[in-house]
Amino acid sequence: MAYEECTIIGRNAVLEGFRSGKTIDKLFVLDGCQDGPVKSILREAKKQSTLIKFVSKEKLDSLSERGKHQGVVAIAAAFEYAEIEDLFAKAEEKGEDPFFILCDEIEDPHNLGAIIRTANLAGAHGVIIPKRRAVGLTGTVAKVSAGALHYTPVARVTNMARTIEELKERGMWFACADMGGEVMYQQNLTGSIGLVVGNEGSGVSRLVREKCDYIVSIPMKGDIDSLNASVAAGVLSFEIVRQRMNQK
Amino acid sequence: MAYEECTIIGRNAVLEGFRSGKTIDKLFVLDGCQDGPVKSILREAKKQSTLIKFVSKEKLDSLSERGKHQGVVAIAAAFEYAEIEDLFAKAEEKGEDPFFILCDEIEDPHNLGAIIRTANLAGAHGVIIPKRRAVGLTGTVAKVSAGALHYTPVARVTNMARTIEELKERGMWFACADMGGEVMYQQNLTGSIGLVVGNEGSGVSRLVREKCDYIVSIPMKGDIDSLNASVAAGVLSFEIVRQRMNQK
Repeated sequence: MAYEECTIIGRNAVLEGFRSGKTIDKLFVLDGCQDGPVKSILREAKKQSTLIKFVSKEKLDSLSERGKHQGVVAIAAAFEYAEIEDLFAKAEEKGEDPFFILCDEIEDPHNLGAIIRTANLAGAHGVIIPKRRAVGLTGTVAKVSAGALHYTPVARVTNMARTIEELKERGMWFACADMGGEVMYQQNLTGSIGLVVGNEGSGVSRLVREKCDYIVSIPMKGDIDSLNASVAAGVLSFEIVRQRMNQK
Repeated sequence: MAYEECTIIGRNAVLEGFRSGKTIDKLFVLDGCQDGPVKSILREAKKQSTLIKFVSKEKLDSLSERGKHQGVVAIAAAFEYAEIEDLFAKAEEKGEDPFFILCDEIEDPHNLGAIIRTANLAGAHGVIIPKRRAVGLTGTVAKVSAGALHYTPVARVTNMARTIEELKERGMWFACADMGGEVMYQQNLTGSIGLVVGNEGSGVSRLVREKCDYIVSIPMKGDIDSLNASVAAGVLSFEIVRQRMNQK
């Protein structure tokens, strides 16, 4: 499978991108650049609440390879994002309790792609990622997901902690993957559940962890610190599968 | 952590590499090149049963970047390989039934690195990889293993099917990760066990699969074909962990 790479370079192309309704993950603008056309682009970006970054000329040069960026480069998603409602709809369609995987600040596209692939095969109804400090649905993520992105909806939210609060009000429970919690085999992971997995280096951020109902841990039998983020997500997801299967 | 990249370029350097006792994973020699110095190198390579590949000048150029390869490039392991006995020793030291992970033709260094990392944390006593058609202990594998290579021995064997036969004679059972077997939760995965995981694209090869005692499957709840190889290895390894913990 090939997925179009989605860097849009130059003022007209970027403005066209916004107006045609493309989902732009990030907009890079030359720091200090404030003329008319750039202002129009910024206006469109704000309308769509796109993440805007003001950067140096060197950064823009590197993003656009040899392209004439005219102070503007946009990164478009290779896939459309879903809404949280789409995830609930998926669960309802299958007649199952909702099971979502929340990725808190996953930066490596290979990890995000593998997690979406895992979500699909573990029967999760969708994946939730944050807008900031995280990789979006790039071409690499789509490729690594091995087709799962065609089936498993991925929603993108501005504030992960607030999203968890809202979903709790709808009856969901949140399990935060981290060390020092009770071992997963001893916990009840059935029912409506959101599994929260954290950043490759630093784990789940404090603010998000505090919103979770409990910490769920993988038993560690070895010498090193932690599993790869996508492997940990896989091990925990299939413990949820096991418990759901046992229940029937 | 930084691991030295291990491409050795040029006749003297390669010969020196062999004579100093470095483990050379692969030797690339210009096709048709048969003069005295090259013959000496080939002799050393055969002594160590290094994998020898005769390749085009273009391949050597790409392996050596701008280096003067003089028709010879060797890839040395970033880490020393262990012997099968080291894996048994590790199990004995811990007073546990042996648990090995066998990687049949894993080609992606990120997958092999993540599997070694998983092996460490799931309490496996070592990893076994084949010499041919598989990635060795390169710098990338070492880096992705996140330090696990310092603790978890990795042995390299010429013939995986024969190794399985030999280990069966020592009382081990082999579970082959594949579709269509019984679901892992329903199988007894305690006792002395070798978990066999296959290639990213084609799974476990037929010859190796036929030597295994049973097929063990992850329940698939989704739309796409299969999990990422390192995620699948993680899910199966921790099912072994769960069953071993339950046993106590």
